[in-house]
Amino acid sequence: MDDLREIAQEVYQRTGVETTVHDVEKVLSGLAGSSHFWGIVCAARKPFSVVAEIVAILERKRLVKVDDKGDLHITPEGWDFLNVQGITARKDYTCPACEGRGIDLAKPQELIQKFDEVTADRPKAIIDYDQGFVTTPTVVSRILLMADRGDLQGKKLLLLGDDDLVSIAAGLSGMPREVVVLEIDDRLVEYINNTAAEYGLPVKAVRYDFRDKLPEEYVGYFDTFHTDPPETLEALELTIGRGLTGLSGEGCAGYFGLTRAEASLKKWNLFQQLLVEKFKVVITDIIDNFNHYVNWDYLLNSIRNDYSFVQVKPRLNWYRSAMYRIETLSGFKGVENRSIPCELYVDREALVYLGNQR
Amino acid sequence: MDDLREIAQEVYQRTGVETTVHDVEKVLSGLAGSSHFWGIVCAARKPFSVVAEIVAILERKRLVKVDDKGDLHITPEGWDFLNVQGITARKDYTCPACEGRGIDLAKPQELIQKFDEVTADRPKAIIDYDQGFVTTPTVVSRILLMADRGDLQGKKLLLLGDDDLVSIAAGLSGMPREVVVLEIDDRLVEYINNTAAEYGLPVKAVRYDFRDKLPEEYVGYFDTFHTDPPETLEALELTIGRGLTGLSGEGCAGYFGLTRAEASLKKWNLFQQLLVEKFKVVITDIIDNFNHYVNWDYLLNSIRNDYSFVQVKPRLNWYRSAMYRIETLSGFKGVENRSIPCELYVDREALVYLGNQR
Repeated sequence: MDDLREIAQEVYQRTGVETTVHDVEKVLSGLAGSSHFWGIVCAARKPFSVVAEIVAILERKRLVKVDDKGDLHITPEGWDFLNVQGITARKDYTCPACEGRGIDLAKPQELIQKFDEVTADRPKAIIDYDQGFVTTPTVVSRILLMADRGDLQGKKLLLLGDDDLVSIAAGLSGMPREVVVLEIDDRLVEYINNTAAEYGLPVKAVRYDFRDKLPEEYVGYFDTFHTDPPETLEALELTIGRGLTGLSGEGCAGYFGLTRAEASLKKWNLFQQLLVEKFKVVITDIIDNFNHYVNWDYLLNSIRNDYSFVQVKPRLNWYRSAMYRIETLSGFKGVENRSIPCELYVDREALVYLGNQR
Repeated sequence: MDDLREIAQEVYQRTGVETTVHDVEKVLSGLAGSSHFWGIVCAARKPFSVVAEIVAILERKRLVKVDDKGDLHITPEGWDFLNVQGITARKDYTCPACEGRGIDLAKPQELIQKFDEVTADRPKAIIDYDQGFVTTPTVVSRILLMADRGDLQGKKLLLLGDDDLVSIAAGLSGMPREVVVLEIDDRLVEYINNTAAEYGLPVKAVRYDFRDKLPEEYVGYFDTFHTDPPETLEALELTIGRGLTGLSGEGCAGYFGLTRAEASLKKWNLFQQLLVEKFKVVITDIIDNFNHYVNWDYLLNSIRNDYSFVQVKPRLNWYRSAMYRIETLSGFKGVENRSIPCELYVDREALVYLGNQR
């Protein structure tokens, strides 16, 4: 226990990210179940730099060995240590049918196929706007989640940023009355508009920078919004505020992802205060690991290269986020529509998390 | 739209529960998909008295007919109304494998069987303590959820109230180091202790009233707590506070259910403020409809009998709740342990919800 506390403290000193004994236990438990760094990050639900520092400390203590492929192995001394601490391999009880989202993917097989066909020529994720898109099962599950909660069928949907192409999936589903995408990346605006025209979807994309006021015609216009925001508190407040400005009143819903890999639970808490206290909305759902991101090309170039086990190509879609659903309450009056100049895509906390190399 | 707003306002006047246009839409959408009152309550995720008033208004407007069995049918005028409003039948996209919980129930078949065998002679739910227990898949999913999140294996678990017999399931799973049940109902204390003795489980039950201080030996003793609290704000603050008093520090977890059937989203918001602001914990999960309750004997006697369609025996486990998981943050110092005299089992809001007959 004292050993674990020492490790937690050292990690805090090295990363500046507060780390608990339980966090260290979760990484050890992950190591007992997997030899792949990115698998352990995924299982531990912790910032990747925290996991990296813990593994590095364990390696220095000779409790873990790194082989030439960068895989991680617990040494005999390591297993003794785990036994003494009563730590066993992490077991995964995620439902394999829905990947833990709770959404039935058997019914919409046609939508899944159609989406893959239609978006085969989608633009690549680029670093400029912190992009990285989600898997097709994730996109389709988002559509069905919104439908299940009564937020999509016959509704007007606002997408604030859409490198995931949720707009196309929503259009192909035939459910929403109207879909508007506000997006900063010209490549995506063009791509979405062309695809919508080609397939006759009720989808329109417009170039928009979150920092600008929402176009007047969209203030109080929508039933539902969806966004996948950058994870500084400032950017979260800005994007969720924009979404709420777009909603028509009480009983409307907002959907967005939030990671553990880039946002600490302390930040989660501050953000939740913002939602329930300042914005006065209610959080109705937080679905763990709902969003699975396709590994993006620029990952290994953008992160620390001082640990060999980190510079290993991910063998799973390790980067995930929880799905939040919020709902506006009776008496909801909207959020003021004004221009807010700020930095959106540089995240001090994420910089620490990603090892100061990004 | 104006018609829907009028209905929402009338429901508010009759029940005192704030009701939105979207709420009315959800009930209509539920009616288009089911003729069974309790199925519609379940789908609409709204207080049952709100659903009852909406249906009654629709019946007076001749948009809905009630047959002699108490089943509900949309009239031809009703279908015209739905078409004009653009409302269609609610579609259910819940994963059938896990009932939407995201937890794999295929692996623990043995635990499910064993639990059913061992608890075949369990005490019946009684009205005195607002009891009503959950289904076996729910209990086992709770165990696996805690295990999946690293909160059970090798840990000390506190159960504040346990008519669900989570303690027995946890003991049978072989995972926790120690389980302590604090429970007001002598029948359950005796039953749990006898069962634990018979099967050699590391489980102990002690009689306890939430209003009393936590026994000193349990302050700061546990890694994880679980409770299924009464849903007044006062009772929620009390029970969650007790759970937090029992936890040993940062990085520990609490689990509990919260319904839509008895707590309004406005109350959810106030409760969330309490969690993130006053208790300074973070909400990591809110899993919709995780907890399914077995229909209890005293339901129809305890509710309004002025609407025939309400006095119908439920054909599904309609009463459900969301599962919350909270986690303590770095620097967590516990919650003061003091006696708090208050009314636990009378809920003004729930009284309204259940039609003032209870």
